[in-house]
Amino acid sequence: MSHPADAVADRSDPTGTRLVGFAEIQDAAKRIAGIATRTPLLPCSWADPDRPLWIKAESLQPIGAFKIRGAVNAVASLDPSAREAGVIAVSSGNHAQAVAYAAKRFGIDALIVIPHGAAVNKVAATQALGATVVRVPPELREQETRRLAEETGRILIHPFDDPRVIAGQGTIGLEIAEQAAQQGFSADAVLAPVSGGGLVSGLAVAVKELIPGASVFGVEPELAADAQASLRSGERTAWPVEDTWRTIADALRASSVGALTWEHLRALVDDVLTVSEPAIRNAVRELAASAQLVVEPGGAVAVAAYLSNLHQLPPGRNYVAVVSGGNVDLDAYAAILSGPPAEA
Amino acid sequence: MSHPADAVADRSDPTGTRLVGFAEIQDAAKRIAGIATRTPLLPCSWADPDRPLWIKAESLQPIGAFKIRGAVNAVASLDPSAREAGVIAVSSGNHAQAVAYAAKRFGIDALIVIPHGAAVNKVAATQALGATVVRVPPELREQETRRLAEETGRILIHPFDDPRVIAGQGTIGLEIAEQAAQQGFSADAVLAPVSGGGLVSGLAVAVKELIPGASVFGVEPELAADAQASLRSGERTAWPVEDTWRTIADALRASSVGALTWEHLRALVDDVLTVSEPAIRNAVRELAASAQLVVEPGGAVAVAAYLSNLHQLPPGRNYVAVVSGGNVDLDAYAAILSGPPAEA
Repeated sequence: MSHPADAVADRSDPTGTRLVGFAEIQDAAKRIAGIATRTPLLPCSWADPDRPLWIKAESLQPIGAFKIRGAVNAVASLDPSAREAGVIAVSSGNHAQAVAYAAKRFGIDALIVIPHGAAVNKVAATQALGATVVRVPPELREQETRRLAEETGRILIHPFDDPRVIAGQGTIGLEIAEQAAQQGFSADAVLAPVSGGGLVSGLAVAVKELIPGASVFGVEPELAADAQASLRSGERTAWPVEDTWRTIADALRASSVGALTWEHLRALVDDVLTVSEPAIRNAVRELAASAQLVVEPGGAVAVAAYLSNLHQLPPGRNYVAVVSGGNVDLDAYAAILSGPPAEA
Repeated sequence: MSHPADAVADRSDPTGTRLVGFAEIQDAAKRIAGIATRTPLLPCSWADPDRPLWIKAESLQPIGAFKIRGAVNAVASLDPSAREAGVIAVSSGNHAQAVAYAAKRFGIDALIVIPHGAAVNKVAATQALGATVVRVPPELREQETRRLAEETGRILIHPFDDPRVIAGQGTIGLEIAEQAAQQGFSADAVLAPVSGGGLVSGLAVAVKELIPGASVFGVEPELAADAQASLRSGERTAWPVEDTWRTIADALRASSVGALTWEHLRALVDDVLTVSEPAIRNAVRELAASAQLVVEPGGAVAVAAYLSNLHQLPPGRNYVAVVSGGNVDLDAYAAILSGPPAEA
């Protein structure tokens, strides 16, 4: 991990692509109100008092993950003919449930493409929400989804590289700023998982708009560190799925950030940090024991970054970690909880 | 379980003891603001659509349990000489942490009596909050606590039979009524764990004041069903600790409700339901898999009552279950999660 203060340094300017704006996030907030939950911003009395930590608990959303925000905003934005055609999405799990949930809510037919290797519980949950599920090999997922979209005329809801999805996820930043102000503190540094980059892209727009001087950090597994590689090299970089599929964090296995999220990352995100697999497991355990939250590995990486880099984080600042999801298979989760404490 | 509609029927009137009033709960709400968390009232999309369920997630309090409310209200009410003398409390766990937390917050010395057999993690957490801990055999806990209080001149913070504690716990009912109104529904039936009865006593005062026609049900393990026995017989009944100590719900092993909470129960609580041990384990699992909440067995009984009596609950009403705590030992918790699905 590079020191947060060194961050932005020699990053090239955005190319002029239009980024999602703050007004779109405000509109999204109105669209998702009453469907997505305004999740709590929980103080962590167990964290380092010199580096106070709050958790934005997106695991408490109705589908157990933040993805409901972007999916609902995207589906709610569709015109009547698009609604008639139905929607299609590709996802290793949480976006699948999110689109299924949003489609059901608006009475729209949903077809979901899920790569083999995705968590079993997420596949079952998607089907339980009434969506039709098609399973494909991970390396063919984009291609198959495009083919099915063309064949059926369905509207593709991309998991991250879509302005409506980014705007929906950005409502998390809006809420963090509002809730921190209500609770009497300033969110100086916000950490959030990055995979395709939709969450951190929208979050950064809202946080930078509302909290002057605040930093936004993406966090990803060392084993799927394409976003960090992209930022460090200045070029959007893809990792082969054989590599990204190694991490226990099944929600964070995207090969690369998107074209649009990349522009947000390089323009607005201060740095991308990485965490080891043992650090992820430790964070899952700590969140169960101390925060009483069931968190999936991918949902725990921001807390893992806080815990495993604690002494490199500047003291005297207020940290917020987005806990992005909690959809676990109980047996796999129990194995993490009762596993040996790991060196992070 | 008797049918909710049959409830109050032939219960004798209260004896004229002064019950905690709604104004005391409003005062408590002001005292605990900014220390206790205004926990979320979470919609459960996985529950029966004909019997919609919301969870009041008190497991998300800083100490992982609702007890912080009563303890903070009691400690904040002490005069300067009492603060100087310090406080003492007896508890199998969550009240211990609550008093330790409140005392630390107000700079007061705390001595906590914890019976043998209490969950190891709760003892450690109490010590970590700076309190001195004394361990005693369960059957001697009241006696030893009285002796130590007299010896040291400390003020006893009773876990439930104290108007300030009851008023503090009552703020849960206040928040449920407010949050339900904000979310656009009426909380028709509220279920909450009962052990000593402090939670359900305060809750019932606020709910009955704010939600006309709402019912309040206490829930306890079949293996520690002294409150139900009391309500059914019309006389406050104690169960031997050898009996109440059998349940996995270590937070619900009080031998009887208190003198003051008994008056609240008979005056305001519609009925006390009981749940089996397998039903408790099932609820712990369901709360992890579907609500992403780490809940201790005692904290899960209200949800257990909802799930295991589902078809006896009148449809078309809105149910709220108080999830009262989530302080688990990770190994014991993992064993529940990976245990065989049980017949509830």
